[in-house]
Amino acid sequence: MDDLFRYIDTHGDAFIHDLQRLCRQPSISAQGVGLEECASLLVAQMQAKGIPARTEPVRGGPPLVVAEIPGDGPRTLLIYDHYDVQPVDPLDEWTSDPFAAEIRDGCLYARGSQDTKGNIMARLAAVEAWLRVRGRLPVGVKFLIEGEEEIGSPHLGETLRERPELARADACIWESGAKDHRDTLNIYLGVKGICYVELEASGANRDLHSSAGATIPNPAWRLVWALATLKGPDEQVRIPGFYDGVAEPSPAEMAQLERIAAQRDDEAIRRDLGLRVFLKGLTGAELVRHHLFRPTCTICGLTAGYSGPGSKTVLPRRASAKIDFRLVPNQRAEEIVAKLREHLRREAYGDITVRAFGLEDPYKTPFDAPIVEVVAEAAEEVYGHAPIILPTMAATGPMHAVCGQFGMPAVGTGIGHAKGNSHGPNENIRLADYIQGIKHIALILERFG
Amino acid sequence: MDDLFRYIDTHGDAFIHDLQRLCRQPSISAQGVGLEECASLLVAQMQAKGIPARTEPVRGGPPLVVAEIPGDGPRTLLIYDHYDVQPVDPLDEWTSDPFAAEIRDGCLYARGSQDTKGNIMARLAAVEAWLRVRGRLPVGVKFLIEGEEEIGSPHLGETLRERPELARADACIWESGAKDHRDTLNIYLGVKGICYVELEASGANRDLHSSAGATIPNPAWRLVWALATLKGPDEQVRIPGFYDGVAEPSPAEMAQLERIAAQRDDEAIRRDLGLRVFLKGLTGAELVRHHLFRPTCTICGLTAGYSGPGSKTVLPRRASAKIDFRLVPNQRAEEIVAKLREHLRREAYGDITVRAFGLEDPYKTPFDAPIVEVVAEAAEEVYGHAPIILPTMAATGPMHAVCGQFGMPAVGTGIGHAKGNSHGPNENIRLADYIQGIKHIALILERFG
Repeated sequence: MDDLFRYIDTHGDAFIHDLQRLCRQPSISAQGVGLEECASLLVAQMQAKGIPARTEPVRGGPPLVVAEIPGDGPRTLLIYDHYDVQPVDPLDEWTSDPFAAEIRDGCLYARGSQDTKGNIMARLAAVEAWLRVRGRLPVGVKFLIEGEEEIGSPHLGETLRERPELARADACIWESGAKDHRDTLNIYLGVKGICYVELEASGANRDLHSSAGATIPNPAWRLVWALATLKGPDEQVRIPGFYDGVAEPSPAEMAQLERIAAQRDDEAIRRDLGLRVFLKGLTGAELVRHHLFRPTCTICGLTAGYSGPGSKTVLPRRASAKIDFRLVPNQRAEEIVAKLREHLRREAYGDITVRAFGLEDPYKTPFDAPIVEVVAEAAEEVYGHAPIILPTMAATGPMHAVCGQFGMPAVGTGIGHAKGNSHGPNENIRLADYIQGIKHIALILERFG
Repeated sequence: MDDLFRYIDTHGDAFIHDLQRLCRQPSISAQGVGLEECASLLVAQMQAKGIPARTEPVRGGPPLVVAEIPGDGPRTLLIYDHYDVQPVDPLDEWTSDPFAAEIRDGCLYARGSQDTKGNIMARLAAVEAWLRVRGRLPVGVKFLIEGEEEIGSPHLGETLRERPELARADACIWESGAKDHRDTLNIYLGVKGICYVELEASGANRDLHSSAGATIPNPAWRLVWALATLKGPDEQVRIPGFYDGVAEPSPAEMAQLERIAAQRDDEAIRRDLGLRVFLKGLTGAELVRHHLFRPTCTICGLTAGYSGPGSKTVLPRRASAKIDFRLVPNQRAEEIVAKLREHLRREAYGDITVRAFGLEDPYKTPFDAPIVEVVAEAAEEVYGHAPIILPTMAATGPMHAVCGQFGMPAVGTGIGHAKGNSHGPNENIRLADYIQGIKHIALILERFG
């Protein structure tokens, strides 16, 4: 592999430049900004690397970017990524423009740099290195890069049910992974599912003077009371049937959670986040178990009435909350929405509308799938230490939509770091991690081939 | 009075023009916009009418606009108004610019047109008519026009305790009043007090990916749970001692409430607001009793995390709520804030910060004060019908700060109408009401003199 690694080292600046170019193209799926443009740019960048890429239309959504490159061996590896990114607000907390892709102190700052344009470009760079240095790939590779991951991949499942050949492979490298607070690489074998909903309560047909509060229904109060029925201060979700079928960790998984806990530096994480304690005072393996195996109900946004400085005495006409439920095996997203609606009806909040954005089911790959060992051993070689293998991650992706129909194993690995701030302001990657990540993928291609 | 009324009729266009000019000067106290400019403009407009107006500095706030004009009789009438206005959002629900003061179909649309620049200008016009037509006033008049009413008059009480001569008089005409849905003038003898507070909960030191929801405290949830302890779906405020000393209506007041209820068209109000029912299904005298005699706890604003379109999976770093409590005799604003803080501590939400903006105590004038009869009889003569006398109003003003130290009686009357939309988008007055209101004040000056 020395020839490949040398190529990667000597072309580092070009790979960084490629990534800056991709990051400078906004592609915010929640706001429909720049998606087609980003897909076209990406196809052009792939073609420039000798990869026969193309867009594939998606009914009702931005196109997929796909490519198939034959390899020497009989196996095919699917690489799943997404070119869309999260919205950028709160904009005033960014040090540089989210789409400037500015480099400071060895880090590249951009919305999408860690999640997940950095991974897209690292994987393309690894393929480029193989093609340029050896003229061929040791394994067949398929790229599947979508543009709606950050809004829950609403069209991916249907598209892949109609065109399964876009995803069919022997194993899948999933979109992301990161070094933890001790700089140990974490790889993961599954994702939580998600139900992202917006609840909206309505009152009078216009905002009123707040002196009307004694006689006019207030949608902000109704929303607060309805929310308080969803989860209490004990952090238990109160929707009947919410926990039905939730899989607890097996003894083997629990042992792995203990190993993970022993290697984590929770105190460093806690201090870095400025927290007095973690939720419910969790520590050690219990903290890890909650993180990976417990479903959640999180308020992502509250909106009603006046939010400016000082006071405005207004009785708002409407109030809304954005909520995400992260789901674990064997919860099903569709069922959770149905239970939520039924719960609100039963609690006499049937007037509150529930809009669902992007439902995704959870997915998990078994520990003993061959790709797991390949990714872990290649990581040990490139990073100089054994990675931590997470049985699943706390976040979500359309792994069920991509891999579920084939029962295809998937492993997530990537170039992130503990302060990469995905979805927040000043999202960034370290350039050294980026180059290391390219080598990791290059080695995985050989080992899986 | 024919000579005066003729003057008012023939100068109607000029009075409307004066009001447009005042409305076109933004003066938003919550945002510190345009206050000094508005005070200067107002002084100039008053001087142009022959009124010896001046500004009086206020420590920590925008100036007062004051004037004293001697009259024939021994009595002095104080006219209280405010030149500040509410913020304009939601801006996209306005048909014309809030500061364009556009006239459409006999109405003038502007932020502050009804609340309360229209009343300022009507009262100035009435004084102008007396001075121009008769060369004198029948009663001494003091103007006291402040610039912080919409944020709870935070400096007025202290200013008037130091300089009581600015307010001392035999009676006070308060800032506003309006015709109801049946076009009957409502005058009122008191105001509710207010406690406007902002509650803020904090979590991690930055917004996080919402997948952290299983282990990281969420300030939006803490805020929701804390709010749910303040008031329940039964609309009862749960802060211990909140209702201590609350004065129920006397039998005489209850009889007045019955009379008021008999003259209201609650169905028209309900339909106009697009409501299925009023709060708790209230109707008739009970609806009026709640409106005027019950204290409230109203959420005016909720803010946390993402409020844009679609979904953003973020765990917010902070969450806040703006809440107003409207108070009735014998609640005291300072005590309510203290009880709120103590309640949050006891319910284990002591980490939630409470910021208080503008505390004001309630105030009520007795039915048998001479000014009440003067205003009511003058109204009957000008409007052609007896006004409805409300023992108090549901809204707030610094009546206690202005009148409390002298025990001075105060009556609110004004040029508003039922669809004037104070504090909301498309605030407006009807020009015919404006001219009628000028005549009403002109007649009050004579009768009280």
